[in-house]
Amino acid sequence: MCQLLGMNCNVPTDICFSFTGFQKRGGATDVHADGWGIAFFEGKGVRLFLDPQPSAQSPVAELVRNYPIRSLNVIAHIRKATQGIVSLENTHPFQRELWGQYWVFAHNGNLPQFQPELDGSFLPVGDTDSERIFCWLLQSLRSRFDDVPPAREALFDALHELTTPLAGMGIFNYLLSNGDSLFAHCSTELSYIVRHAPFATAHLKDEDVMVDFSEVTTPNDRVAVIATQPLTDNEPWITMPPGSLWLFHDGEVVAHRLTLPSPFKSLSGS
Amino acid sequence: MCQLLGMNCNVPTDICFSFTGFQKRGGATDVHADGWGIAFFEGKGVRLFLDPQPSAQSPVAELVRNYPIRSLNVIAHIRKATQGIVSLENTHPFQRELWGQYWVFAHNGNLPQFQPELDGSFLPVGDTDSERIFCWLLQSLRSRFDDVPPAREALFDALHELTTPLAGMGIFNYLLSNGDSLFAHCSTELSYIVRHAPFATAHLKDEDVMVDFSEVTTPNDRVAVIATQPLTDNEPWITMPPGSLWLFHDGEVVAHRLTLPSPFKSLSGS
Repeated sequence: MCQLLGMNCNVPTDICFSFTGFQKRGGATDVHADGWGIAFFEGKGVRLFLDPQPSAQSPVAELVRNYPIRSLNVIAHIRKATQGIVSLENTHPFQRELWGQYWVFAHNGNLPQFQPELDGSFLPVGDTDSERIFCWLLQSLRSRFDDVPPAREALFDALHELTTPLAGMGIFNYLLSNGDSLFAHCSTELSYIVRHAPFATAHLKDEDVMVDFSEVTTPNDRVAVIATQPLTDNEPWITMPPGSLWLFHDGEVVAHRLTLPSPFKSLSGS
Repeated sequence: MCQLLGMNCNVPTDICFSFTGFQKRGGATDVHADGWGIAFFEGKGVRLFLDPQPSAQSPVAELVRNYPIRSLNVIAHIRKATQGIVSLENTHPFQRELWGQYWVFAHNGNLPQFQPELDGSFLPVGDTDSERIFCWLLQSLRSRFDDVPPAREALFDALHELTTPLAGMGIFNYLLSNGDSLFAHCSTELSYIVRHAPFATAHLKDEDVMVDFSEVTTPNDRVAVIATQPLTDNEPWITMPPGSLWLFHDGEVVAHRLTLPSPFKSLSGS
């Protein structure tokens, strides 16, 4: 299995502190040593750093840790390969373009039984089930909304409808962003914290590093951090209930809804 | 205007030497200071490093220069903005997926009169004419070959047919790769060199750096380097004639054909 890290903010924020702890789990404090990646939205563009090496030893990860890239939406992933070989094309996050927006997706889990038909509009390059699911999600969104990107809430409704049938088929924790919002689905394990004024000091679990957020923020800043397991040991992380989809925008939770599997729902037409 | 750098090899090769000289042109020895990017194919995957900062001062460029990423196909670009603001989404190379392959494109020039209709299958995220042309090229390839990726030669024929009408409409130097081959179109300025045994010593034009390729190669290695302007001052670079499309595979020229504009050719149907 893998680990996920996401960030959604109301002002461009760097993720150096959180990434420092997360990076350690890629082969140092934990076993997720089969590659890693991180995507930063900056304006409408995306910077995607991928490395099939363990993040704990990766020179690219060192760069990311020390080079503050300020972003409203970040998605990172460290991989413990369960499907697909260790290779660049199987390294998350995956990126595609839909409606003239970049979309980024990372997945923790397995959905071996889900073999959707792909119409060719988005095709996987590697051989993970994760990339296949991402292609199917984008294909489904495009066929549902045609050429018109929907409003945030309509997108959440659509993702809820698409995710719900899969939530009972396997482990399907994911982070998805189009640069505007960040969608998080907790299938088995995902937590989050929203940091806002008055800011306090945080201490990493995976390395003895501390930061006083009051020194590096303004009173209006709001930052949501989402992770498979809490990254700090002195903050009140919220554990998402298994089977729940969350919409983060401007650093706060805008919507959340259960995705309990329904045996009466089929995948046809989605 | 901008500058292009490409590499196509028969064994995975790093581009550190060429990139060292190329990077200097991004704000140090030349004026291309409005961002830069480089894409490395590794297997079926791509690592795309983008930075809207001048490459001569970019920490990401420092990483690329010092971290040998071995690749069969590389495309790099340094930008002097002529259309579109300086921003990440306008930074070349651009990347999309078609037929389950990643495609990478970088452009030097301007085609302001070319306003193709896009059907939504590939849409630009930024506002450069370059990204628009790339989207149109991929859309045209998909509509021509449907779901079946064509053989290399058929792809070259199709690109020749698509490129020819544009060759007379503006400046249209480009590099394009799907990870298998590298296509280079010289509209006004592009040179290349093929390095093979017996390997000799090369000296950069933009920095006093030398490399003895015989020490870092095997006798079977073959490496084609393509650049807007020659990167070394002691090697026999070949100047491509304006209006010519080139196909590089396994480090050598497989095909080349003129793309002189024909006034009798319309864009319809392409």
